Amino acid sequence: MRIGILTSGGDCPGINATIRGVCKTAISHYGMEVYGIRSGFRGLLDNDIIPLDENSLTGLLSMGGTILGTSREKPFKNRANVPVSEDKPAMMLKTIRERKLDCVVCIGGNGTQKTAAKLAATGVNVVTVPKTIDNDVWGTDISFGFDSAVSIATEAIDRLHSTASAHQRVMVIEVMGHKAGWIALYSGMAGGGDIILLPEIPFDIHRIGDTIINRLKKGKPYSIVVVAEGIPTLGGKKAAQYIAEEIEYETGFETRETVLGYIQRGGGPTAFDRNLATRMGGHATELIASGQFGRMVSLRGSEITSVPLSEVAGKLKLVTEEHDLVIQGRRMGICFG
Amino acid sequence: MRIGILTSGGDCPGINATIRGVCKTAISHYGMEVYGIRSGFRGLLDNDIIPLDENSLTGLLSMGGTILGTSREKPFKNRANVPVSEDKPAMMLKTIRERKLDCVVCIGGNGTQKTAAKLAATGVNVVTVPKTIDNDVWGTDISFGFDSAVSIATEAIDRLHSTASAHQRVMVIEVMGHKAGWIALYSGMAGGGDIILLPEIPFDIHRIGDTIINRLKKGKPYSIVVVAEGIPTLGGKKAAQYIAEEIEYETGFETRETVLGYIQRGGGPTAFDRNLATRMGGHATELIASGQFGRMVSLRGSEITSVPLSEVAGKLKLVTEEHDLVIQGRRMGICFG
Amino acid sequence: MRIGILTSGGDCPGINATIRGVCKTAISHYGMEVYGIRSGFRGLLDNDIIPLDENSLTGLLSMGGTILGTSREKPFKNRANVPVSEDKPAMMLKTIRERKLDCVVCIGGNGTQKTAAKLAATGVNVVTVPKTIDNDVWGTDISFGFDSAVSIATEAIDRLHSTASAHQRVMVIEVMGHKAGWIALYSGMAGGGDIILLPEIPFDIHRIGDTIINRLKKGKPYSIVVVAEGIPTLGGKKAAQYIAEEIEYETGFETRETVLGYIQRGGGPTAFDRNLATRMGGHATELIASGQFGRMVSLRGSEITSVPLSEVAGKLKLVTEEHDLVIQGRRMGICFG
Amino acid sequence: MRIGILTSGGDCPGINATIRGVCKTAISHYGMEVYGIRSGFRGLLDNDIIPLDENSLTGLLSMGGTILGTSREKPFKNRANVPVSEDKPAMMLKTIRERKLDCVVCIGGNGTQKTAAKLAATGVNVVTVPKTIDNDVWGTDISFGFDSAVSIATEAIDRLHSTASAHQRVMVIEVMGHKAGWIALYSGMAGGGDIILLPEIPFDIHRIGDTIINRLKKGKPYSIVVVAEGIPTLGGKKAAQYIAEEIEYETGFETRETVLGYIQRGGGPTAFDRNLATRMGGHATELIASGQFGRMVSLRGSEITSVPLSEVAGKLKLVTEEHDLVIQGRRMGICFG
Repeated sequence: MRIGILTSGGDCPGINATIRGVCKTAISHYGMEVYGIRSGFRGLLDNDIIPLDENSLTGLLSMGGTILGTSREKPFKNRANVPVSEDKPAMMLKTIRERKLDCVVCIGGNGTQKTAAKLAATGVNVVTVPKTIDNDVWGTDISFGFDSAVSIATEAIDRLHSTASAHQRVMVIEVMGHKAGWIALYSGMAGGGDIILLPEIPFDIHRIGDTIINRLKKGKPYSIVVVAEGIPTLGGKKAAQYIAEEIEYETGFETRETVLGYIQRGGGPTAFDRNLATRMGGHATELIASGQFGRMVSLRGSEITSVPLSEVAGKLKLVTEEHDLVIQGRRMGICFG
Repeated sequence: MRIGILTSGGDCPGINATIRGVCKTAISHYGMEVYGIRSGFRGLLDNDIIPLDENSLTGLLSMGGTILGTSREKPFKNRANVPVSEDKPAMMLKTIRERKLDCVVCIGGNGTQKTAAKLAATGVNVVTVPKTIDNDVWGTDISFGFDSAVSIATEAIDRLHSTASAHQRVMVIEVMGHKAGWIALYSGMAGGGDIILLPEIPFDIHRIGDTIINRLKKGKPYSIVVVAEGIPTLGGKKAAQYIAEEIEYETGFETRETVLGYIQRGGGPTAFDRNLATRMGGHATELIASGQFGRMVSLRGSEITSVPLSEVAGKLKLVTEEHDLVIQGRRMGICFG
Repeated sequence: MRIGILTSGGDCPGINATIRGVCKTAISHYGMEVYGIRSGFRGLLDNDIIPLDENSLTGLLSMGGTILGTSREKPFKNRANVPVSEDKPAMMLKTIRERKLDCVVCIGGNGTQKTAAKLAATGVNVVTVPKTIDNDVWGTDISFGFDSAVSIATEAIDRLHSTASAHQRVMVIEVMGHKAGWIALYSGMAGGGDIILLPEIPFDIHRIGDTIINRLKKGKPYSIVVVAEGIPTLGGKKAAQYIAEEIEYETGFETRETVLGYIQRGGGPTAFDRNLATRMGGHATELIASGQFGRMVSLRGSEITSVPLSEVAGKLKLVTEEHDLVIQGRRMGICFG
Repeated sequence: MRIGILTSGGDCPGINATIRGVCKTAISHYGMEVYGIRSGFRGLLDNDIIPLDENSLTGLLSMGGTILGTSREKPFKNRANVPVSEDKPAMMLKTIRERKLDCVVCIGGNGTQKTAAKLAATGVNVVTVPKTIDNDVWGTDISFGFDSAVSIATEAIDRLHSTASAHQRVMVIEVMGHKAGWIALYSGMAGGGDIILLPEIPFDIHRIGDTIINRLKKGKPYSIVVVAEGIPTLGGKKAAQYIAEEIEYETGFETRETVLGYIQRGGGPTAFDRNLATRMGGHATELIASGQFGRMVSLRGSEITSVPLSEVAGKLKLVTEEHDLVIQGRRMGICFG
């Protein structure tokens, strides 16, 4: 059996560990042949494919990034008015046929799941692994990369506490999360944020100001505000800047902002993410070995299982008011807006 | 309502975050009064109790150790032939009555759960939170402290790789785990161990030697061996020393050992453990508020719930051959003995 | 002997370790009394002063921020047209006299050294310790806080490598340094930056573009650019944004920017900074004990010594083309502009 | 010009950064050819040599270990009664001649400096770079690897504080340093050790006990003891075990020991060590380019320079009572024995 593997979408700690998990299981347990498809779906268009053997896997467990490269190529997009010779789905099928790939493993986020579902619909054997620091892929409790991103963000928030307290300031930190506030919620709670703003929960700037002023009255003349990048703002401002300006206006407190940015998605994975990535990669190979295609690997509770790709594609997993960490945060006096 | 809180048994990252979770919820949400009982159950014997308010909780989320102190005091042990005036259970009840504590929250490992169950059997309202880096408390999927210990051990194993490879050596590292091999399993898998030995899985030193020699044949003249401290040895030797000597004898490879020791249980918790500890602490207060006593807080899948203390006490949660990470490890060619 | 100690200007890892170094030496070796002046020079204006004893020092060695608080109060600024009763220097002298302080230890950066020199000129016994993550205080080879800031920035740059390489992008990271490029130079070199831009060295955007294109030709279709916040830009743009836009325009490469911001100055100090801070704090007390006032503690080579405050005040220590790390960087093909 | 480069002796963070510094300067600045000699001096015996180009250097700056491998081969030892055909110095000269190496760069500790000096005495052009986590190479203020080892040890000591304080125990930690106590001194001071024992300073167990008991009297019923592995013990016991037993006997305090071991020398270098290694590597190439052979690169104050190998070989740099950090430690009440 010959399997191809590709990584698509944004960088995320644990991709290489997943590749290792897929390949080691495939090669040493099932005697499959494995091929690396480079730069995401673009490698299927360009026939840019390399063989992977056990030696290619050395050091991958702890290494950030992806040895296969990635891209944001979406081969099923804008197909109207394209000459047949440039029809991307056809080009991909040609490569898969030429390379005699029995299956393609796609490691990626929501966009990748959508593309993979479409590829599967053309008759290709596809298995996917969810990959996102944002944790917003529907159908899995947690994605690898999320724990790493939360750890980095939490460490950054830890560092801001000393400045906030030494200068009696409000420190606003913006973390990743366009539509889903998972990183803000988890790092905000782990970092001791006093105010945590998510795209999913509407906020009222007066209530935020009141929270800061009430802290002052209790002898804490400083506050930490954790905001997801995707919260609504006015005037096209970035989240952190907008909230910092509003807080300064409301409270008169000196307020400073930090945008954490790309360091959240770079570097090696945490131990937690390494094991999750390894298990998910191994399970992808199990699905292939047992002929279960068109499925996305998934974590449910503490068990690795899988869900039909068709159920996943196009959906987002969002934070809700009923999430235990939101409820617990509110009970502890944290302001969610 | 007045609640007392104590921490008992070994140090563990996340205890202070749990105390904070219990107290913030109790004080700011339920208006309860909270008292800290010092040095575990000894504080109940000695009436060594201090009030806790919101200011006592500043900085606790990320702080290692326990602000309440701990001890290994087991007040229900060896009660025969003790004069009534020195009967420890009676002394504890006296303190609880004098201090008018409506409930005692006990944060601790297996020994603590046992003691707490006995205390509950005397009629005291008890709620417990499992606390162990070893992850061997029955009735919960994961305990806080475990992720932190695994992270520290994984980072240590990461460091050994460079020495193993530069010197073409076998490096043996001993991690904590007397009866349960959870830390060895999780850090061994996350750290890229080639051989992982747990108390629960019998090993054969010849098979270990073969694994090392096969790696040499594949061009990898070095190996990483992760052993739990509780594996069986001969001659009263410590786990790492015994395995290192046996490997050197079997293979002729230069072999070096490291015993990780106490640094696994010290220092601040990971982001994962902070959130787990916060949620568990908060849930303990919820149990009190709703009058559900005699229960241990528990993580099941991704949900915080609770189990009857009577079901927990005296049982250990061990690694089994059916554990997904063991199965996945075997598929990838890792030797478990 | 009674000494007062204050911390002024921006937050910096190692301030608390310096306070501990001053106080432990003063209290346990010389039997002096020590008083903490809160919120920088503002504490001298407001007579906001607390006694410090050995118990106040527990845990300070590794703690970020400053237990005394800080401010940017400049009491010698804008003295014209101020009524005598509000003359700040006089107010400070009144506090010092009332509190019977024989000496004031000022821990701070360039602004603080200037203020301290003016305070010394009024006849007050002053000893200072340089404190700046920017490393731009004249008269000392290194200031504590610098190694910590460089470590944090280097770790961030490390993380960007995986994203740069996975996405074949140019990643621009902006680190602190308004006038001096020390952090950019040291973290850029330690983090493997390909292009490093400092306020002190003029740059030519074409040469930067050529460097990136030459790397592409050598098979490296990605680059890391480290810029100090203080480099000249056009249109009021921030350093990272300006450089990223210019690179994208010049080369056509997808370019992303990150502004590291406040996390560089928060959190606990590295081992290096703890020892430097401890030694500098101890030396400050030595100067007091031997009656050498009007001096700033200084590191020269590996020796702790001191320089006259009057020589320090108003000068900046800048990177020059002759600095060994610049010369070495150029030899290795790094582009400094 | 053709240069060979080898790494010899124990693993040490920063070796790969040094190799990169030597090679990048040699290749891109001077147009030299560079060859990697594998497994230390053994590679010269076995003619095990590979070409190094710029692509071989990717990722080396932050990578632990040595890509060239290392060994403890001492080719000038035990030469009596060896047949001429097996005379190791002659074998090395043959390789150097055959490979047309104009110079050999040796990166290593004290043993390596000795061997290199002997190799130089046979007429070979030799330049060396000091490499030791122990910091005991004579002729340089600091060696790369030392800051990394101190950082790791300090972080470990930080972790022990929480256990010591939670359990009211004495925690003894053994760090590396057979003859020189540099790591114990620097990590002990940075980690807030209460007692620091070095091979260079004789200790009295009663004084150690008194220190612990005095701390108890001051309300600190726990202590941290940092010991170098090379302190004298009785009965062939390891340093930590011996001291822990003696303290328990003297004071009655529950005492626990940790031996940090190999994790001190593994893994990637700190930012400080990366820059030191880069500068030292670059300077080695400068020495070659300017024909200055028989010299060891050296850090003096903040300047990189070099010293004659003949002055270095056979000497050890030890801690003395006059070292500033010892003096400062004593002033702060730390017990050095």
